[in-house]
Amino acid sequence: MKLGLVGLGKMGLNLGQNLIDNKHEVVAFDLNTAAVKQMESYGAQGVASLEQLVKALPTPRIVWIMVPHGVVDNVLTEITPFLSKGDIVIEAGNSHYKESIRRYNELKESGVHFMDAGTSGGMEGARNGACYMVGGDPEAWAIVEPIFRDTAVENGYLYAGKAGSGHYLKMVHNGIEYGMMAAIGEGFEVLEKSDFDFDYEKVARVWNNGSVVRSWLMELTERAFSKDAKLDAIKGVMQSSGEGKWTVEEALDLQTATPVIAMSLLMRYRSLEDDTFTGKVVAALRNEFGGHAVEKK
Amino acid sequence: MKLGLVGLGKMGLNLGQNLIDNKHEVVAFDLNTAAVKQMESYGAQGVASLEQLVKALPTPRIVWIMVPHGVVDNVLTEITPFLSKGDIVIEAGNSHYKESIRRYNELKESGVHFMDAGTSGGMEGARNGACYMVGGDPEAWAIVEPIFRDTAVENGYLYAGKAGSGHYLKMVHNGIEYGMMAAIGEGFEVLEKSDFDFDYEKVARVWNNGSVVRSWLMELTERAFSKDAKLDAIKGVMQSSGEGKWTVEEALDLQTATPVIAMSLLMRYRSLEDDTFTGKVVAALRNEFGGHAVEKK
Repeated sequence: MKLGLVGLGKMGLNLGQNLIDNKHEVVAFDLNTAAVKQMESYGAQGVASLEQLVKALPTPRIVWIMVPHGVVDNVLTEITPFLSKGDIVIEAGNSHYKESIRRYNELKESGVHFMDAGTSGGMEGARNGACYMVGGDPEAWAIVEPIFRDTAVENGYLYAGKAGSGHYLKMVHNGIEYGMMAAIGEGFEVLEKSDFDFDYEKVARVWNNGSVVRSWLMELTERAFSKDAKLDAIKGVMQSSGEGKWTVEEALDLQTATPVIAMSLLMRYRSLEDDTFTGKVVAALRNEFGGHAVEKK
Repeated sequence: MKLGLVGLGKMGLNLGQNLIDNKHEVVAFDLNTAAVKQMESYGAQGVASLEQLVKALPTPRIVWIMVPHGVVDNVLTEITPFLSKGDIVIEAGNSHYKESIRRYNELKESGVHFMDAGTSGGMEGARNGACYMVGGDPEAWAIVEPIFRDTAVENGYLYAGKAGSGHYLKMVHNGIEYGMMAAIGEGFEVLEKSDFDFDYEKVARVWNNGSVVRSWLMELTERAFSKDAKLDAIKGVMQSSGEGKWTVEEALDLQTATPVIAMSLLMRYRSLEDDTFTGKVVAALRNEFGGHAVEKK
């Protein structure tokens, strides 16, 4: 199929190549003209504006947006006037599902189908086969399904249902990911503090072969330890980029107990601090009631 | 090799068949004579006592013990008098690593090598290829390694180091498993409480293909939902069998923060209760200070 691709960052460039490998025609746009040139060199038709991008597409037009979530609305605001009834916009970034529902409703006013596609698998996935969870109108899904099928790993795409369901699944997927990663991290911390002298790369490898915890995350753990046996080169600072927090916020709104996922998020926040005010308060209290020593700055 | 197999429960019977498939000679014993007959019918040499089992083996004797952890010491007490210097006892059940270190030291007095083998993969693993983490003397490991290599999946065995290290790794493996399982459970709970109508089997399947959380546990999740789309037939009661608790106890002894694994254990305990005394106390307090309604029994 012929489709527009807006956003040629790391994810977009890899997806564009994946699309072209699978015989799709890509009309590509990015504010970064070097990225457009790079995409052209791989066989895409580069354009200099969103208007040109829309005009280069047959109807119904299919536009895949792969930009940082902070600029999705800018792109939509700019491109919508050029779109017509029946066109389909796929937003495959890491947006909050409520934003996707809002965008779905806004584009619906122009008769444009908005589809929210949660994407997992990172750059490798975008290049060689991603995992997609997609929400939106079923009649739009019927048109765009081949694009997802061709660029996903086998069985790696799901039409999840109504608008927002794709990004909702991706959000919860990441919440689960936070908990799994924290469990793996804590397990290795116990090993590291123990009286034994384990080879963590070998431990991760044996756990990846026949054990209950075998998983892609454990494979990544093995890979990380293969590069740095004790991870001496990095600090244990755990950043986060939104979906874990969103999962916990959603759980709070639903009054649903998700203490493990919530704790994994809170421990990421803890890791951002060298010292804590909590710790100062508790140390001061122990000193007040029991005369217990405090550590001075 | 020729080795003794003590304990022909579900794990032992499957392991015995796996051993025989791999051209090992198995001398089998269990108090349950029907299980011994079953093992004989698969090609093992059945015996009627631990003494006979030892006498049927060439030196250095190799005895694999696969019995419930509560009876390991009984078996060891009974069999040790028949063993000689250089013999090797492999204990492949779910024992606490400190018990394994004690047993190692006790058998060392007779010159017998005790090896602690943590085993993962369940009955399917015992039958077709398990995952082993093994601790004990390196000179004993050099002798028994082929047994582990032959009955494990490829790369699914690790000589972990000194006595206790095998069961230590298995303990921490299960701690990680608790956290991963809790994260998966909580994620699906959010989906179930949400405003969307997801097909959980399909969700688990897409997450198993290209996503970051793809894992054997997610494959089991997919299998469970394929049998019962909403798990309507079962209750959310989460039993536990020791290693998760041991991991948390070890973390406490090491003063190591493992809140995610600990929380996953505590939530298993919570799931055993229909109501909680905590809840009664908190409800009573809200009533005392704010006049907030309580639910009457």
